Amino acid sequence: MPTQLMLARRGEVTLLMQRVAEKELADPEFVRAEVAAGRLVIPANVRRSCARPVGIGARFACKVNANIGNSPLRSGAEEELAKLEVAAAAGADTVMDLSTGDGIAAIRAAVLEASPVPVGTVPIYEAVARAGEPEALTAEGLLDVIVEHASQGVDYMTVHCGILREHLLSAEKRLMGIVSRGGAILAAWMRSRGRENPLYERFDDLLAIAAEHDVTLSLGDGLRPGCLADASDGAQFGELETLAELASRAQAAGVQVMIEGPGHVPIDQIETNMRRQARLCRGAPFYVLGPVVTDVAPGYDHITSAIGAALAAAYGAAMICYVTPSEHLGLPDIEDVREGVIAARIAAHAGDVAKGLRGARAWDDAMSKARRELDWEKQFALALDPARARAFFGEERETAPNPCSMCGPRFCSIRIDRSSQALHGASPAADEGDGEA
Amino acid sequence: MPTQLMLARRGEVTLLMQRVAEKELADPEFVRAEVAAGRLVIPANVRRSCARPVGIGARFACKVNANIGNSPLRSGAEEELAKLEVAAAAGADTVMDLSTGDGIAAIRAAVLEASPVPVGTVPIYEAVARAGEPEALTAEGLLDVIVEHASQGVDYMTVHCGILREHLLSAEKRLMGIVSRGGAILAAWMRSRGRENPLYERFDDLLAIAAEHDVTLSLGDGLRPGCLADASDGAQFGELETLAELASRAQAAGVQVMIEGPGHVPIDQIETNMRRQARLCRGAPFYVLGPVVTDVAPGYDHITSAIGAALAAAYGAAMICYVTPSEHLGLPDIEDVREGVIAARIAAHAGDVAKGLRGARAWDDAMSKARRELDWEKQFALALDPARARAFFGEERETAPNPCSMCGPRFCSIRIDRSSQALHGASPAADEGDGEA
Repeated sequence: MPTQLMLARRGEVTLLMQRVAEKELADPEFVRAEVAAGRLVIPANVRRSCARPVGIGARFACKVNANIGNSPLRSGAEEELAKLEVAAAAGADTVMDLSTGDGIAAIRAAVLEASPVPVGTVPIYEAVARAGEPEALTAEGLLDVIVEHASQGVDYMTVHCGILREHLLSAEKRLMGIVSRGGAILAAWMRSRGRENPLYERFDDLLAIAAEHDVTLSLGDGLRPGCLADASDGAQFGELETLAELASRAQAAGVQVMIEGPGHVPIDQIETNMRRQARLCRGAPFYVLGPVVTDVAPGYDHITSAIGAALAAAYGAAMICYVTPSEHLGLPDIEDVREGVIAARIAAHAGDVAKGLRGARAWDDAMSKARRELDWEKQFALALDPARARAFFGEERETAPNPCSMCGPRFCSIRIDRSSQALHGASPAADEGDGEA
Repeated sequence: MPTQLMLARRGEVTLLMQRVAEKELADPEFVRAEVAAGRLVIPANVRRSCARPVGIGARFACKVNANIGNSPLRSGAEEELAKLEVAAAAGADTVMDLSTGDGIAAIRAAVLEASPVPVGTVPIYEAVARAGEPEALTAEGLLDVIVEHASQGVDYMTVHCGILREHLLSAEKRLMGIVSRGGAILAAWMRSRGRENPLYERFDDLLAIAAEHDVTLSLGDGLRPGCLADASDGAQFGELETLAELASRAQAAGVQVMIEGPGHVPIDQIETNMRRQARLCRGAPFYVLGPVVTDVAPGYDHITSAIGAALAAAYGAAMICYVTPSEHLGLPDIEDVREGVIAARIAAHAGDVAKGLRGARAWDDAMSKARRELDWEKQFALALDPARARAFFGEERETAPNPCSMCGPRFCSIRIDRSSQALHGASPAADEGDGEA
């Protein structure tokens, strides 16, 4: 069966492209052209259909992914399904099942069955779980797992194909070394075997599997920086060049592809990082994890990453992977998942507004109008998280139009300004122009 | 008694300047020169000494202010003192008592007595509370309150001197109008009286009071945008020009002065806003409220503002006013205060790193080193909020070096990378250079 990319190149506007166009308020032909150009991916395994397909690309609304999945120390299928439900309800556009603990295949099957959004995985985790340790991996074992995931209906997969032996020396000079699990596993394998990354060497086989099922490849950044000190270094940018080459090869084979990005990056390096990826990868969608803009706030990395992600989105990141408050400390629980999705959605929307996405600011303007009207019910309805907004407002309302407990009726700036204008009418025009903006 | 600014101009390095220099790891003579140039303020009323004096200026660490104070609908002195304690413990560099409810003077006296950090106020609130309504204000009544605050030991005061009649028409074209309480009060007064802003007309009297007590003036932005749609408009920038003129007059009179800034500003307009203020106000410290980068997330405005504040700080904001999760919905409670301070401190530090403040990244690097060593106790000790980090880590440790519950021991990238390197030694050098950064 042809992939969305193959069909787009033939000039076909598929049903999925139409659905994406509707959701994005875009012209279906534009969606097709962006898919054909490799600037938009629609992760949708031919074996599975999900209720909320998404298009991921810089010229569209920035998307949010939520990672779920158990670890050897915590959580089972039920809790992961609950996380899925919370993530989807909070507005996650995709989920990734990163399970590494017991019953990986069963959890994935349940997630694929239940998820209303595209599902991604990182097959190397299951391959290592089977092999027992990183060094015991084989290329065949890894490809077997990838085939299984693809056959099961996984929509996109992170594959760390770009970390090569030539990059390792650079990574060894780092403060934090390799913090990507996939990257660390493959580095350990390459060091112990003295051979090249099997996912790189067998990339054509990988492409054949991906093309058969229209699995979107998410080229993992095994060398993403794990702290500010390691950002934008030779290891990171060396791998990025390899990822760009592989993205071209994937597109040539008709395989949809996106590029994963950092990580931990100080604010002043984010624009450069985004522009470099866009140039090297010729607009292939950039899927970023954060970036976290300071290392000092464990327990609040949904905030440190929202700062970086908002900037990244403003510069064209196509999808943000959420970071939860428990990042760097433990496996997220259900409330962490919710907080993480909301923080990432804030970043994505702030980025959409900043990049001038058509229609993005209308949401803000509607909220502002409701605020000016002191229409609290409308504010709650428009809020990114209505229940939270309502809870903070509490029970302190008075007569309409209601002030909140922050200022009370006498010190409500909106009420004062409105009633004063109503009483005294418009002010006279200033002598000088006031239109500078 | 001469102000710090007067003394700095005479070439004197005061005790306060020395203390600021120690805290900032700066040369005392540099601190003096920055104060003399009007680029650094040390808010310190001559009637009061506080345990943790601070210097506020773009070439130093970005500071964080926490607003406390009751409203007519909520809270009394005890709760406000509890907020003060929490804010100071969480690392707020200054607090502002914005009380508008019962017992304003008594709460302020208690705050001044208890606060280890400089205290700011907005005297117009008390003036309106006494007058009964904005239109009943008089210039004398307002100046009386200002004298009382100054005599009581208030270190800095927000005075909305820059909102003029000529700006009002522009503000009336806005989606949100005037959202600053001080701004709305003065606009209502000007509309009803048909006269100019009394704080502008009596600015020389105000300067005399400020000079006598070395009260730092924080020139309030009564026309700060209250939504994205109103950002960077004629009203905001018109007032900013007036604030720049007034800042010059204040400095000429030996009065320390800073400029307050927005508000609600989309990400793509923040750099311009910061550069404009720095140019017009010739480097006078910029004290920003947020900016909030999207209007749609009530309940999470500590995050929407941390995004904007981090960017603002990166571009030289000297102080960030915290925004709490309850912003736009109600008066913050004690937990909101704590969350607000932490989010603002994250933004300030991320900005310090981005602007290349000497020594700022050492904190991040120390944390990263502790992470690489899987030294959890050191990570907690270095965390911006140690208690929170420890709580998330939970009870799931194993034998040292302990992995967290996110990956468990088998999938810990740090453990895999470290043990693989230990086993196999350094990788051979790559053929090509890896030094591009």
